[in-house]
Amino acid sequence: MMIDSLIGSRTEVIDSAGSKGAIVLMTRIRLARNLANTPFPGWAKPEQRHQVLEACLPALVQLDQMKQGFSAEMTGLSDLEKLILMERHLISRELSHAKENAGVVISRDQSCAIMINEEDHLRIQVLRGGYHFKKVWSGIDTVDSALESSLDYAFAPELGFLTACPTNVGTGMRASAMMHLPALVISGQMEKVVRAVNQLGIAVRGLFGEGSDASGSIFQISNQTTLGESEDEILKRLAQVLNTVIEQEMNARERILEKDSGKLYDKIGRAFGILQNSHLLTSAEAMNLLSLIRLGVDLKAFPEAMRTTVDRLFIECQPGHIQYHASKTIDGVERDHFRAGYLRAEFEKTARPDFRRVNNEL
Amino acid sequence: MMIDSLIGSRTEVIDSAGSKGAIVLMTRIRLARNLANTPFPGWAKPEQRHQVLEACLPALVQLDQMKQGFSAEMTGLSDLEKLILMERHLISRELSHAKENAGVVISRDQSCAIMINEEDHLRIQVLRGGYHFKKVWSGIDTVDSALESSLDYAFAPELGFLTACPTNVGTGMRASAMMHLPALVISGQMEKVVRAVNQLGIAVRGLFGEGSDASGSIFQISNQTTLGESEDEILKRLAQVLNTVIEQEMNARERILEKDSGKLYDKIGRAFGILQNSHLLTSAEAMNLLSLIRLGVDLKAFPEAMRTTVDRLFIECQPGHIQYHASKTIDGVERDHFRAGYLRAEFEKTARPDFRRVNNEL
Repeated sequence: MMIDSLIGSRTEVIDSAGSKGAIVLMTRIRLARNLANTPFPGWAKPEQRHQVLEACLPALVQLDQMKQGFSAEMTGLSDLEKLILMERHLISRELSHAKENAGVVISRDQSCAIMINEEDHLRIQVLRGGYHFKKVWSGIDTVDSALESSLDYAFAPELGFLTACPTNVGTGMRASAMMHLPALVISGQMEKVVRAVNQLGIAVRGLFGEGSDASGSIFQISNQTTLGESEDEILKRLAQVLNTVIEQEMNARERILEKDSGKLYDKIGRAFGILQNSHLLTSAEAMNLLSLIRLGVDLKAFPEAMRTTVDRLFIECQPGHIQYHASKTIDGVERDHFRAGYLRAEFEKTARPDFRRVNNEL
Repeated sequence: MMIDSLIGSRTEVIDSAGSKGAIVLMTRIRLARNLANTPFPGWAKPEQRHQVLEACLPALVQLDQMKQGFSAEMTGLSDLEKLILMERHLISRELSHAKENAGVVISRDQSCAIMINEEDHLRIQVLRGGYHFKKVWSGIDTVDSALESSLDYAFAPELGFLTACPTNVGTGMRASAMMHLPALVISGQMEKVVRAVNQLGIAVRGLFGEGSDASGSIFQISNQTTLGESEDEILKRLAQVLNTVIEQEMNARERILEKDSGKLYDKIGRAFGILQNSHLLTSAEAMNLLSLIRLGVDLKAFPEAMRTTVDRLFIECQPGHIQYHASKTIDGVERDHFRAGYLRAEFEKTARPDFRRVNNEL
């Protein structure tokens, strides 16, 4: 089964160590692309969607990046498998609801995923742990160019790439950083930050995109406009905003440490104690506790190696992954029970946080 | 200083192991006594109060039970010392507010304490960890008889002992059990129990008597009437009620274990995790966490030896004791910080709860 192999494979996505200020969990770029002279998926007849799938699948699978990768049609995946792919940010909620003639191709290392017949014919995505827009852009540009040589993209010289939704016309690009901003959340500044960022044409969303909540103090920050600017310009503008947000998060951490380190140590300590000892844990609570542990790693109260564990657990404590590891479909309470046991086992041998190592000058 | 010696001495009060169902933390009886032909303290002139103190102190200090004991006038005690005595249930709030000519004599093992010029000339108290009304009654009866031979009690044949407040006239006795009732609290049945118990002329109060809250799920259950029944009859009636409450608590525990053991293990596990890792802990939260650990001991998830530790910590986590151990007067937040550190150190080496040992048939 594809999912076994995918879950068993090393992924690029959860290696965020060494990222800027350890605040950017993941960098992601997606490009919306469509085939010329073919109705967009939402308007296409089943037969036309089928033709798109037939035309694209071979082109995608043959990409260098997709060697030994995974590919599936949505109809061939169980609900649990779709959920797991969503939790790994490899497919969208919209694609998971698609019925026929929709599919996904995923690279072995899960750093590249291309959805077929989502809102657009193709949604190409490259993602990578940490703050790496240059590498991610260069990766996705390579994939895009390779595909362009075998597929005929819908493109208008005066507009750029044509897309199903006007908000994507132009570059078809959305670049986003998944950011861990616990101090801005704790100090109640996040709303202010979101307002300021929005005014610069940059969007802030929860962990799973629009409408999802920011459990774990994790936010996706991405460009909103795709038209009238080059990819370079968009990325540059986004990076400026991200750097400012990183700075604000670092300042917020310093202020908390200066003014009320005891309260922060208490939060981190309790999070650790609960992860080590709880017997019922919702996904949202688990995310928030893990977020505090990750902050503890940033403060050096936990060893640096813990960061990769936490970033992995951010994914593994989601409902789909929990059910996968439980080897069965289980309901909410049973899931909370299994999740608690899973995390207890992960943290069982971990030493308690040592706040004497906290560096007040972050 | 008296308090150093008192805190350093072994006390009978926190040895509740082996008590009935481990539910009764402490048994206590107090007798209100007054000297004949002398105004009650509330009506007495300073000089008359002084005479009472002068007459009683030597008689009390000479009691067998008070050998190598402690004695103090209230004016000779600091606020912190008074607070510590209150937290140990050795003096009342009322006595701690008394200005002149009031005092207390306490036995070496702190199982006997006699207040002078509280509401009555004498308030004799004997207390003991666990469920031991017979021993406690026999102890206080011995003290009372010994005093009666040297002091002239105010007594009316048709009423019994005369007291400042009519509710104490007769036996002058209040017998109370300090009960740990976490399952009745968790399952929301406590209110119903209080109502039923009240209808039998038995009072239910919080940890520190009237008007105090029941933090730690600890309740004082005591007789309300003192007139028209012998001490034996009162104690018998009280014991019947206590046995019913114990049974109800045990039933509540069984039902929780049957229906939702995961939720209970979660509560106990988290309590342990927080005690081991918090950095800020109010007195009320500490009591509630310790209460859950004590329930864990009852369920055999912790070793039996932990019970004495918890019962000791119930006292030591109170504000007065925390300040004593911090060796200075500290405000609320500093106290919460010190308390958290004190409890972290206590639980540092403790093994996590093992719920595989829980016996579902309590």
